[in-house]
Amino acid sequence: MPYSAPATGGNTALYAEIQQFYAHQMHLLDGGDADAWAQTFTPDGVFAANAHPQPAVGRETIRAAASKVKAQHAEEGLQVRHWLGMMDITEQPDGSVLARTYALIINTPRGGQAAVSLSTTCDDLLVRDENGAWLVADRKVVRDDLR
Amino acid sequence: MPYSAPATGGNTALYAEIQQFYAHQMHLLDGGDADAWAQTFTPDGVFAANAHPQPAVGRETIRAAASKVKAQHAEEGLQVRHWLGMMDITEQPDGSVLARTYALIINTPRGGQAAVSLSTTCDDLLVRDENGAWLVADRKVVRDDLR
Amino acid sequence: MPYSAPATGGNTALYAEIQQFYAHQMHLLDGGDADAWAQTFTPDGVFAANAHPQPAVGRETIRAAASKVKAQHAEEGLQVRHWLGMMDITEQPDGSVLARTYALIINTPRGGQAAVSLSTTCDDLLVRDENGAWLVADRKVVRDDLR
Repeated sequence: MPYSAPATGGNTALYAEIQQFYAHQMHLLDGGDADAWAQTFTPDGVFAANAHPQPAVGRETIRAAASKVKAQHAEEGLQVRHWLGMMDITEQPDGSVLARTYALIINTPRGGQAAVSLSTTCDDLLVRDENGAWLVADRKVVRDDLR
Repeated sequence: MPYSAPATGGNTALYAEIQQFYAHQMHLLDGGDADAWAQTFTPDGVFAANAHPQPAVGRETIRAAASKVKAQHAEEGLQVRHWLGMMDITEQPDGSVLARTYALIINTPRGGQAAVSLSTTCDDLLVRDENGAWLVADRKVVRDDLR
Repeated sequence: MPYSAPATGGNTALYAEIQQFYAHQMHLLDGGDADAWAQTFTPDGVFAANAHPQPAVGRETIRAAASKVKAQHAEEGLQVRHWLGMMDITEQPDGSVLARTYALIINTPRGGQAAVSLSTTCDDLLVRDENGAWLVADRKVVRDDLR
């Protein structure tokens, strides 16, 4: 199959479905709902980042990390927005999806100037739960400044 | 229904349709076509923002506001781009759609440096007109710096 | 047909398909794969920009230009990300697609601060190759600072 063929293999409904998943997931994170955020990962989900010495593994660890960061932002009066985009997906034979995206983190201090904080890539392995909803089984975030 | 289920309820065609609507709408705004922009709202459409003391109500008010802002930007030699993204939609029983997005406003002065101007959220109630085209019935924009 | 009707004419699968194409294309460019990048244009594809005195025509010219720019970025320790968004598409009777997008170029120096580098528009004529994959037949990039 030529490299330029749609990675979705004609499954374009999947593309919108995963865009919707990411939007919802990031609204949860930026809205400070750490519990619901953690539930968008599999129970043994992995969140790795080149900015962190070790990956966070499992929902409770992922929840606690998000909760801590959110508390810091609240103290600093900072509203953070995670934009995921340029989503390149590949459906795998077992129904899981590899999703490669760019992420842009936009910070706005209360009463201050919005600005780009970070540019990263985000490589996810997505799987469906028993109800068909998408979950992140494995996420790898690479900050462009730390490459 | 679990929170992580696709908010589109399987209606993934809707997701792309509304992305296309927003893209077209923002091209009209940033291109300075205030008349066509106003027509993307219902006749009694509401545009509220936490930066404005009062909402703009109705197409003529919405048109006049866009026209005034565009004239200012032209005078300042400023090209403004409205990016909507991270779109989280919910289809309602009556066929209307709640669309929660992030907006990023990028300003470029003539001969100058492009930069993020504002980060906001944008919560819309979208309805179809008699031809099936989407219109904004109610928009609420909240600037992150003014939260 | 009213201006606000979906430009896709109900062909919402097409919208996701082209989003996927652009994501893949930009990952190739930003990843430095100039060969594969050039193959996303038609053999006689045209890349014109208001920042360039002359358009680049043909895959080899397009490849060489991307390769040169990538080498510069590598030397400067710069990671560049091309975001395309706000995609407004129109399917033409012959099956080709006009795609009008906004582009945002985000630069991150190694160990430094990510920032918006440029805001542009990107107007493409897209055609299918013999396998149904999308190719850019004609691209016109207009930098907002040079309008």
